[in-house]
Order: sequence, then C-alpha cells, then structure tokens
Amino acid sequence: MGAGLDEFGLIARYLAPLAGPGGLGLLDDAALLQPTPGNDLVLTKDMIIAGVHFLDDDPPGMIAAKLLRVNLSDLAAKGARPRAYLLGLALPAGIDEAWIAAFARGLADDQQTFGIELLGGDTTATQGPVVLSLTAIGEVPVGTMLRRGGARAGDLVAVSGTIGDGMLGLEASLGQLPGLAPGDAAWLRDRYLRPQPRLALGARLRRWATAGADVSDGLIADLGNIARASGLSAELDLSLVPLSPQAMAALAVRPELAARIPTGGDDYELVITLAPSDLVRLQVESDPPLTIIGKMVSGKTGIVTDEKGQPLGPGGYRHFGS
Amino acid sequence: MGAGLDEFGLIARYLAPLAGPGGLGLLDDAALLQPTPGNDLVLTKDMIIAGVHFLDDDPPGMIAAKLLRVNLSDLAAKGARPRAYLLGLALPAGIDEAWIAAFARGLADDQQTFGIELLGGDTTATQGPVVLSLTAIGEVPVGTMLRRGGARAGDLVAVSGTIGDGMLGLEASLGQLPGLAPGDAAWLRDRYLRPQPRLALGARLRRWATAGADVSDGLIADLGNIARASGLSAELDLSLVPLSPQAMAALAVRPELAARIPTGGDDYELVITLAPSDLVRLQVESDPPLTIIGKMVSGKTGIVTDEKGQPLGPGGYRHFGS
Repeated sequence: MGAGLDEFGLIARYLAPLAGPGGLGLLDDAALLQPTPGNDLVLTKDMIIAGVHFLDDDPPGMIAAKLLRVNLSDLAAKGARPRAYLLGLALPAGIDEAWIAAFARGLADDQQTFGIELLGGDTTATQGPVVLSLTAIGEVPVGTMLRRGGARAGDLVAVSGTIGDGMLGLEASLGQLPGLAPGDAAWLRDRYLRPQPRLALGARLRRWATAGADVSDGLIADLGNIARASGLSAELDLSLVPLSPQAMAALAVRPELAARIPTGGDDYELVITLAPSDLVRLQVESDPPLTIIGKMVSGKTGIVTDEKGQPLGPGGYRHFGS
Repeated sequence: MGAGLDEFGLIARYLAPLAGPGGLGLLDDAALLQPTPGNDLVLTKDMIIAGVHFLDDDPPGMIAAKLLRVNLSDLAAKGARPRAYLLGLALPAGIDEAWIAAFARGLADDQQTFGIELLGGDTTATQGPVVLSLTAIGEVPVGTMLRRGGARAGDLVAVSGTIGDGMLGLEASLGQLPGLAPGDAAWLRDRYLRPQPRLALGARLRRWATAGADVSDGLIADLGNIARASGLSAELDLSLVPLSPQAMAALAVRPELAARIPTGGDDYELVITLAPSDLVRLQVESDPPLTIIGKMVSGKTGIVTDEKGQPLGPGGYRHFGS
C-alpha cells in the first residue's frame, strides 16, 4: 500500500470510525449482527473493478457512493431495509492515503444518508487494478421479500422514474454530448455517478408487487430476468418507457442514442410486475412515479418482446423509437 | 470470460447447483437467510488474490477449499456454527470453463464437509489477476460470540494443535525442503494447502475461553491482536509452542527455519485465553489438544514479549529456539 500505510494503520485511521456496534471497532476479524426478531435477512454482493466499472481517476468518494448504492439498489428491489455492510478492498501500490481518506469520507456520508453501518471486511494488496467488493445486509418481515420469480401471466409491468439517464450520463461524462445544455449534462452525469436506490419505494412495493428487480443491466435484461425466473415472457411497449426532460434534450442532440435507452443500464430504477387489480395503487406512487410499460404473458420463458411479439434483446433495441 | 461463457451460463451451469434454498437458485440478485431464533449472526469476509495468496497454477479445487476454509477459520475463532456464504469472482480472460468447473467441485466438496450452502454473489471480468472474495455467515446463541477483546490480566494463553506447519508446508511446496522424507513433506504441504478450521473446538471454547483468534497471520501477530483488543500485553514462552513431528523433521533439515515458526502464519489453529481456574478444562480437549504457551499481563497494550519481557515482533523471532 502507498505511503507506508500498513493494513492496521489504514483500518484504524479510516475504517474503524465507520464501524457500528456490530463491527466491534474492527478489532475482531468477524462481526456481530443481531437480527431483528420476526425478520428475514436479505444479502447481496456486488464487486466493482477499476477500468471496468469506474475509471482510475474518478473521485474516490464518488466510487464509494456508487459501490454502496448499487448494492443498496439490490436491497431496494427486494423491499428490504438496509442495515449494514462488509467491505473488501484490493488495492495496488499506486493508491495513497489521500485516496483512502476520500473513499472513507464517501462511505461515511452515505452511511448517514441510508442509516447503515460498516461491520467489517478485508484489505489486501494487489498487483492488479483496484477491486472493491461489498456485501450488503438488509431485513424484511418474515416471508415478505420481493422476488424476481413471482410474476403471473396477465400481470402488468411498471417501471419507476425515468429510463436511459444512466447511459446518457455516461455519454455526457465521456464528453459525447457536446451540444447539450450544461445543466442538463450535469443532471444526467449525476444520475450516472450517484444512483438513488429506491429503498422507500421498494418497501411499499413489497406489499403488493408480484415481482421486482432493479434496472442495473438495462431495462430489457432486467425485465428478462423477471421473465426467466417467473417462467414467462414479457411484452414491452417501448413507446411507453418514461424519459426525463434531460434525456429528451440529449436525444435531440444525438437521436441515434434512442436505440440504446432500453438496454443501457445503470438507471437503478425498479421494474416490477403487478396484478391488473392493483393498477389503482400506482396512482399514489409519486416518489418516483411508476409507469406501466408492458405485461407478462405465458409462452416462451425469459424472452422480452415488443408489443407486436418481436423479440427484443441485444439486437432488439433497433425497434426503439421507430 | 474464456470459452465464450457468459455470466449467466457460468452461474447456471456451475454455481446454481451449489445454492441452497436461501440462494433461490441464484435467479435473484439477493439472497434470503432466515436466522435461527435466539441466535446472533457472525459475519466475516476475506479476499484472496492470484500471485499474493495463491499461485496461478494451483489446482482450482484447492484454491476453492482454501478460500472457504480461511473464512470458516474466522468463524471457528468466534465459536460460530457456519451456515452459508456469498462469493465474488473477478476473473481474467485466461480463466476457462475447466478452471471454473474444478473450482465449483472444490466448493461442492467443502459444502458437504462443513454443512453450508451458497447464497449468492457476483461474477465479473477483470484485466488483472483472479480476485476471490467470500463472505461467510455463521450463528452463535445470543451474546455468546467469542471475541478478541475479552482477555483479563492473569489469564493463561493456549494454542490448539501444532504451530509452524503452514509456513513449513509452503517451504515444502516451493521445493525448499529437499532433504525431508516425502511423507513428511506431503503432510506439511497438506497443512498449508487445506486448512482445517477448528469449528467443533471453537464451539466448545465459546463456553469458557475469555478471548480467541485464529492463527492466520502468525502466532505472535494474532496473539498481539488479542492483546491489543484486550488492552493488555501477552507473555509467550516460545519453548512451549507445540510442534508436529513433521515440523521437527523439517527443522532437522533446515534449523534456521525455527526462527520463523512463531511468525509464519497459515496454521489456522486457535489461540485463546482462559482463566487459570479453567486450566483443568484443557485436559479434556484432544481434537486437537490445547497447549499452554503463556499468559496475559497488564502494562503496555498490544505487545507480545518472551518470558523475560523482551518484545517479540517482526524482529523478535530471533529469540526463538535460542
């Protein structure tokens, strides 16, 4: 590790202050979690890697926030309340103390925002790129976890917020939307860099949605996961997919990006299925609102089609906007 | 990933069969764990990296066993019963399907041995070396987790099994013990490559030991962690540290390795502290036996000394055997 900082020095100075009571001051090599009686635990683990999921010169606090939030988004998709996390850091020699300090500040800020604590983890040296691994732990009342596999034929498909902002935010970050108004570009970049896990929405949806997933890999891919796990296919009306005003401004600059909206990923919205009889419930959701975009049908398993039954997939986005 | 195997193909073919009921067939991106009523959860996370913790051409099944067992050893040191684990795999392009198949077989074998199940995880591509991250989850009856910080001045220090086999097994693996009988070399290599987490012993120790840790970083370092967390120092009589017959045979070949026994690490035995009034309990422990090697004293915090009060540490091993 850079700057002569050994593992104990690093843990003591920057990570121990993040540990909650269960983390035992990070003086133990295992952590304690007292489950809330009457609850199931929900666990998820995502890794992110420099050069794949973030860039070497991205601000460390932003990387910390993204690492935490992509995992919290998985918990949101299950309707779970987040409680704590464990952290694995593989760090090359080029990482210095300032990087670690900024990374820890980013974690501290988000611990406040989301009411969670660090339980423990591992730091190790690597010859390769930075690898960050996070295990997030949440809770739901026994038996109420929202799953991917609960959709039924005839269920409607709805999505929260707006889709495509993540992909367009990455384009803006890469300087690929030069004609866009600076305010719109900044808004899209923030959508890409600082996901907003839909935790409050997920906790409400848990009571009546039949299946749910977060939109991390792309709307078609994530809806396809619901379809596969439910033994159904999904019919998506691409013209109904909700876009932000900023996304529409970006598409006015580069119309060809419209094709990538439903496959782009990194939106961290929720895609759910619901019984038609629960349609009225959508009207009370406003933070963010839910929009009906399709329905679940029996037939082939794990396929997403357009409203005419044409398969959408890696190539299917060509239909979008046409 | 090599051989054109995408993430879903990999998960479906090799990892989904390892998932228990809580893993939901790995069709969800979060897992469910129902805590046993009246229990606390114990969580630990260790990462291992190619070129640092194992070699690129080590057998994948052996790497899987080591990854799992180093984490289970952390649970053993807490007196916890292991239940489940989450797995993160960052894999470079050179990893092929045969590697993954052998790795999964290694996990499957150890799931049987230890009665645990895969809950979920993440696989991702990397430009760097293989990085493996594992979060292990165990349980203890509420309030009974064995900690590092519970030692009291006057407590005795004991260690399970024999110390130094891990370090000597690595030497044997590297071909650095050429004069040693093949049977002894094979036994030491196995001690290095296949740690035996002391789970049954840890579960018994939880009832009366005052503090515990596993010997992963080296006896002096791990006892030092107990001392630091307990606000004490530890006095170690190096002449009492138990050695295996195979270790003694290795030291007959290379006597200078004796100096590295108490710092070598990778033994995955347990080092504990106990009240002198509990000394009689040691006599019934035989699997493996416990040996008294020192005592806890007030004074400087986090220091390990020899029986004359001379600090042992990175340089302190010079006293060993002299």
